[in-house]
Amino acid sequence: MVDTLTILAPGLLGGSVAQAARARGAARRIVIWARRPEVRLALTEQPWCDDIADTPETAVAEASLVVIAAPVTRINELVDRIAPHLPATAIVTDVGSVKAEICRHACSQLAAHNPAATFIGSHPMAGSALTGWAHGDPELFAGRTCFVTPHNSPPEDRLTTVVRFWRDLGSDVVTIDPDQHDEIVAHISHLPQVVATALGETLAGQPTHWSQLAGNGLRDTTRIAASDATMWVDILEQNRDEVLRALDRFETDLHHFRAALANRDWPAIRAHLERGKAWRDTLHP
Amino acid sequence: MVDTLTILAPGLLGGSVAQAARARGAARRIVIWARRPEVRLALTEQPWCDDIADTPETAVAEASLVVIAAPVTRINELVDRIAPHLPATAIVTDVGSVKAEICRHACSQLAAHNPAATFIGSHPMAGSALTGWAHGDPELFAGRTCFVTPHNSPPEDRLTTVVRFWRDLGSDVVTIDPDQHDEIVAHISHLPQVVATALGETLAGQPTHWSQLAGNGLRDTTRIAASDATMWVDILEQNRDEVLRALDRFETDLHHFRAALANRDWPAIRAHLERGKAWRDTLHP
Repeated sequence: MVDTLTILAPGLLGGSVAQAARARGAARRIVIWARRPEVRLALTEQPWCDDIADTPETAVAEASLVVIAAPVTRINELVDRIAPHLPATAIVTDVGSVKAEICRHACSQLAAHNPAATFIGSHPMAGSALTGWAHGDPELFAGRTCFVTPHNSPPEDRLTTVVRFWRDLGSDVVTIDPDQHDEIVAHISHLPQVVATALGETLAGQPTHWSQLAGNGLRDTTRIAASDATMWVDILEQNRDEVLRALDRFETDLHHFRAALANRDWPAIRAHLERGKAWRDTLHP
Repeated sequence: MVDTLTILAPGLLGGSVAQAARARGAARRIVIWARRPEVRLALTEQPWCDDIADTPETAVAEASLVVIAAPVTRINELVDRIAPHLPATAIVTDVGSVKAEICRHACSQLAAHNPAATFIGSHPMAGSALTGWAHGDPELFAGRTCFVTPHNSPPEDRLTTVVRFWRDLGSDVVTIDPDQHDEIVAHISHLPQVVATALGETLAGQPTHWSQLAGNGLRDTTRIAASDATMWVDILEQNRDEVLRALDRFETDLHHFRAALANRDWPAIRAHLERGKAWRDTLHP
């Protein structure tokens, strides 16, 4: 159990971390800072919030574990603000979807300002079509992958604390280098997002009533195109290079399929369909 | 109500047509021909099958409405076989996913051999991961789109009979020209299939354990890649030209997205994401 858990800038994920930690007894005390005063006021009434802080600096003053739940583009500035104010033994993590840049920045800031504190990135692969702390769900992380991304070999016991925290929240933890994390999610998460968006744009360019005739196939294939645009601009900005590489691979695969279709090469078309099916059959439905 | 409904070569769709017609009282008598003798034997025990025929020619001898339920590549040969044996007032339809070639062929065959009979194509947008008549479902068509594709202006009452038949089975019927049908399904059904397959191939080219870390987004986006390869080779063969056109549009949209990402043009990236989301938000979840 973590002694004092501090959550900065709770949205859907931060609110869910607090609720899950309370429900599962993963933290003795939960302290929260939110940017907007009206959110801080509303949080005082939540049973999963023991203390509200008016600033990030005061929120972390007694923290054992800090979870920065801000969007990926705001994490660095929060690290900069809290670094000089952390207890020497504090561990800091985050919930950002891209890890390499955040981990490098945070580790160098802590090394400069508070060398006994430790940053270890996290990325819980959980979400919802809903946003905001009010939609938080104590079961959001149950049975879902959570990446933990140590950079520059943090002390083993600190890494164990972060891994155990996410396990306590119900996650299946995968410990991995931040750069490799970013390469993997570029393929399993960011590439599907771009493809679903482009497919949505193609359909948007056709007569409106066509889409209303579609079956479940089109609905499934484009479901994530409905995700929040602001969040995805931030993610794609932080993981641009890896996403471009994944897109290159996809464009090449699609081009081979297209060429086989243009050439009426039906054995090749069959081979493409069978490779896609064989891969998909290895996933859960 | 149809008097004698004849179903040729029942698979999942043909079996479901028979069960739905019986359950909903859409046909007085149901006659079935299946290619394999063991299937014909098994069908004799089904409460939705009144008579089994040993050949397509005898199966249609008293038919009011014939539903050819064979894969798209076998429909033409069945039309050729039954054309001279149809009652003069018979209506013939099918359940193929591509319509232009089938409708042209069938209409010219009937005009040559049995000018008083009528072919009007159908395409119920319903399916299942399962195949075969034994997985038939009387509710398979309920609430789903069924395209009815008249070619060369068939008599109005014949068209009404086909439309009413699918409505009796619970479908939302859309009457449309066969060529326009093929253009629409190239975009709303065949393009998503090709995209999901290519995405599956890209993931198949990465380390196996990556895919196991994926969340629901990748699962949804690639779900239809698990569809039957043989069926899709046939569909893509019959609708090659329209699918190539739809693929061109998709590749162009994807390329614009890629160029914006390569150029770090974040306002353009945001506009792409918002267009995809605006379109997806108009669909049911």
